[in-house]
Amino acid sequence: MHCVRGKIAILAYQLKITKKKPKMTENNRYCVILCGGCGSRLWPKSRIQMPKQFIDFLGTGQSLLQLTVARLKGIIPQENIFMLTQTEYAEIVKQQVPEISESQILLEPARRRTAPGNAWAAYHIKAINPDAKIMVAPCDNIILRVDEFRQSVVKAFEFIEQNDDTLLTFGVKPTHPETRYGYIQQGKEIDGEFATVKTFTEKPDLELAKVFIDSGEFYWNTGIFFWSADTIIKALLENASVEVSPKFAEGEGIYGTERETEFIKEIYEVSPSASIDYAVLDKADNVTVLRVEGIGWTDLGTWGALYDVSPKTREGNVVQRAKAMMVNSRNNVVSVKSDKLVIVSGLDDYIIADSDNALLIVPRSEEQKIRNYVREVKAVHGDKYL
Amino acid sequence: MHCVRGKIAILAYQLKITKKKPKMTENNRYCVILCGGCGSRLWPKSRIQMPKQFIDFLGTGQSLLQLTVARLKGIIPQENIFMLTQTEYAEIVKQQVPEISESQILLEPARRRTAPGNAWAAYHIKAINPDAKIMVAPCDNIILRVDEFRQSVVKAFEFIEQNDDTLLTFGVKPTHPETRYGYIQQGKEIDGEFATVKTFTEKPDLELAKVFIDSGEFYWNTGIFFWSADTIIKALLENASVEVSPKFAEGEGIYGTERETEFIKEIYEVSPSASIDYAVLDKADNVTVLRVEGIGWTDLGTWGALYDVSPKTREGNVVQRAKAMMVNSRNNVVSVKSDKLVIVSGLDDYIIADSDNALLIVPRSEEQKIRNYVREVKAVHGDKYL
Repeated sequence: MHCVRGKIAILAYQLKITKKKPKMTENNRYCVILCGGCGSRLWPKSRIQMPKQFIDFLGTGQSLLQLTVARLKGIIPQENIFMLTQTEYAEIVKQQVPEISESQILLEPARRRTAPGNAWAAYHIKAINPDAKIMVAPCDNIILRVDEFRQSVVKAFEFIEQNDDTLLTFGVKPTHPETRYGYIQQGKEIDGEFATVKTFTEKPDLELAKVFIDSGEFYWNTGIFFWSADTIIKALLENASVEVSPKFAEGEGIYGTERETEFIKEIYEVSPSASIDYAVLDKADNVTVLRVEGIGWTDLGTWGALYDVSPKTREGNVVQRAKAMMVNSRNNVVSVKSDKLVIVSGLDDYIIADSDNALLIVPRSEEQKIRNYVREVKAVHGDKYL
Repeated sequence: MHCVRGKIAILAYQLKITKKKPKMTENNRYCVILCGGCGSRLWPKSRIQMPKQFIDFLGTGQSLLQLTVARLKGIIPQENIFMLTQTEYAEIVKQQVPEISESQILLEPARRRTAPGNAWAAYHIKAINPDAKIMVAPCDNIILRVDEFRQSVVKAFEFIEQNDDTLLTFGVKPTHPETRYGYIQQGKEIDGEFATVKTFTEKPDLELAKVFIDSGEFYWNTGIFFWSADTIIKALLENASVEVSPKFAEGEGIYGTERETEFIKEIYEVSPSASIDYAVLDKADNVTVLRVEGIGWTDLGTWGALYDVSPKTREGNVVQRAKAMMVNSRNNVVSVKSDKLVIVSGLDDYIIADSDNALLIVPRSEEQKIRNYVREVKAVHGDKYL
């Protein structure tokens, strides 16, 4: 169901496509790092002014964003790495990734989830290099086995370089029935680790997650994608003319010029919010999954995820930075500012997270509600505590 | 069981006593406010650098010390009000009670509980006025009905002015079987609200506290005492020559001079720690109790006490200053810095207290353990978090 304007845009766009043989070179490899999220489920450590991706959550000395950039070193040319973020984070990004030039930072003028951002990035990069192959990388991933991950990234690029019309997803073989992730169900085997995609699913409940695991057909949806600029643009026009403005296609001659900022602002102003998963991948029929195993992948979206990946005391407590005295208390995650002393007694399975002006004490089982609490806080107090 | 040195001191002291008729005037009325405590059971709001007595715990705009001083206005001459505190609190006391001159602040050079301090204060004040009648006032009391309290104070002074050889305690008729307080058991009726004292008891358990209440003979020990300088000095020499150095008696001609500081320092250096209750009142046979009722007295010694006296939400939560979102949470006391946002879910009957570098989350039923936790913290980290 495309609107007429959408159809016209597709036709207009298709007329412009001139089939070229891809250059098959690493210089065509690009990455768009999505670093504009607000990380509200990790409040109050993750703040609207300094969301999780800019925080050294694991105590490694590097923020999640810096870790993400570091993982790409040597497999994607530095000048081909783009940051897609919100205008308000421009300075933080420049400061945390000084090796990236200002022209590599795409500043979204409003929060519209991932679909409009991916559209813009594709058009923008295509204007630079029509043969561009783009990796889309969220920056709240934790990846413990970086070498294995990098091998998979190269494999993914090689696949779309040889199968230009494919939207490639990056699925991780589940190690347990996790309810925090969406899942990708594979369809037919293609070749080695590649398969067609049958369905995308939302976060399942525990029972369903167990069924997924037992079936052997389901993979965690990492939110990492690979596609050529041309292919995602075509897919957007074909599948997402409601969710993503077809006006992006009218920007030829504008991308890369000083008029781009104003042009994008106009589009974003009237754009609905939509995720790229919902707007495109759910509907497209040219989606493939690279089935990856053993890279130690986690999405650091919630306190529970942080709990899972962190070292624990004998009593199962995760204590970040703080000096903690945990009395008769088990399986808690405690995250307070460096060097703060915490004394907890008689508490099991809680999240205790403290920032300068906010303190959160909720059961780990309620981690998904934190986003709602933050919404309520915003309704009452505005941005003061976000 | 007095040591020989103690006996000699008594004899020497008794030789010096010249029985005078008391002047029966308000100018002989003195008060010693005990404001040197460290309030560790109210950690981490009460800190070693700024203990509870200097904090506006009730949000009245006045610290507990300032409230204590204000209650005495008009019934004790301002120049007769002395502060007994630790050297480190000199500046805070001066700042909080600027109407008191520096000579009215007695700075203890070490923590030795209440017995040595009361001894020093008595000798010091006696050197100024041999007829001095002294009220000893802790400053962690909360008194809701100040007029009634003031009437009782005047009554107490009048009693010891007419019964100079009495150590008068101030007992409050219990309203419930409180386990946080020591109790005074009355003996024989003397006159109106006065009675002899049969026993002092430590904090009872709940069962015993109920027995106390049912008997009708027991009163809460407020820690407020009235005695003439002479009488307490005599009682110290007779009863407490082990706990309180008899050397205090040798200071005639030194109290009030510039040699006093050095003299006191020498005594404190070798002095044991003892409470005046244990050192004197437990043993003396001239102890009387003024039985007081309906003054709304509480000792703000613990978080539970603060909970009891504070206004509560419909769910029974006491929230101090913070903006709190209490979800499925009842009967908690939340004390954090002004304007901090707190979100708590699924927690009942807890103390949640937060300061800049320390956070405490313990059940209200464990309030007496907080002091031990603080002790452990000190053992590991020194004074950093105290």
